[in-house]
Amino acid sequence: MNPQKAFQDHYPDVLAHCYGCGRLNEFGHQIKSYWDGDESVCHFLPEARHIAIPGYVYGGLLASLVDCHGTGTAAAAAYRAEGRPMDSDPPLRFLTASLHVDYLKPTPLGIVLEVRGRVKELKGRKVVIEEWLLANGEVTVRGELVAVQVPDKMLEDLIKPGN
Amino acid sequence: MNPQKAFQDHYPDVLAHCYGCGRLNEFGHQIKSYWDGDESVCHFLPEARHIAIPGYVYGGLLASLVDCHGTGTAAAAAYRAEGRPMDSDPPLRFLTASLHVDYLKPTPLGIVLEVRGRVKELKGRKVVIEEWLLANGEVTVRGELVAVQVPDKMLEDLIKPGN
Repeated sequence: MNPQKAFQDHYPDVLAHCYGCGRLNEFGHQIKSYWDGDESVCHFLPEARHIAIPGYVYGGLLASLVDCHGTGTAAAAAYRAEGRPMDSDPPLRFLTASLHVDYLKPTPLGIVLEVRGRVKELKGRKVVIEEWLLANGEVTVRGELVAVQVPDKMLEDLIKPGN
Repeated sequence: MNPQKAFQDHYPDVLAHCYGCGRLNEFGHQIKSYWDGDESVCHFLPEARHIAIPGYVYGGLLASLVDCHGTGTAAAAAYRAEGRPMDSDPPLRFLTASLHVDYLKPTPLGIVLEVRGRVKELKGRKVVIEEWLLANGEVTVRGELVAVQVPDKMLEDLIKPGN
């Protein structure tokens, strides 16, 4: 167990239902991302059902890991840039504007994968995250994600009492 | 029911386990893609669990639809270019080399989505597919996929008796 709280553990409840990263989605992946120096890291063990061709992980799951680890990293980076902890108000959450994934080689199924991220750009409400995924220490996937901060009004509507 | 057989219904059994598009993956999405003139089309109803923020579909599923509809379209296009049906030998299957997804606006959850594709380039063992996803007739996602044909040796090893 990682003694730190994951980025996703700080999301407000109403924003914690995402199939990829929501801690409250009992059917979802519930990924957990952490800082490791200037890089972010997430470990994930795909299930047997997440197969592509025999022996390998299907690309949609890998895209999903890059996506949700990326938006988590974007949020964590935005708090860090403001010099305040992730559980402070107002909450900052990010949506994916664009996602690019290069599948360099097949990713083996049945082992824990490591997704790593690094902030490439942070400007206003936009954050660009560069990512790579390792299987047995080898990079099998590279990704890049452009994340944009959830509009304040949308966030207010979502977190107001009754929701 | 669509009277045509879907692209994915022609995949050899050993290549029909993919979580996104394998007809034999009982836990997966089992998407079905068809020709509609020069475009390919796939309809998919996300489940409640496929949530991002309340009311909207999570991006990883949308990326997965673009991915698997794209590789299916690439295979169908390759057969069409050779002027032979999808159930003829040798089988042609494609893997994703790269995937790009632009999330233009949030995609509403709870309705049938339509994913459409068009061949942008078909050259040798590489096919580029342009895609877009419609929700209530409105384009919410655009994507592009570069697919490469599964190497013959890999395909032979996969489909040889005993596998």
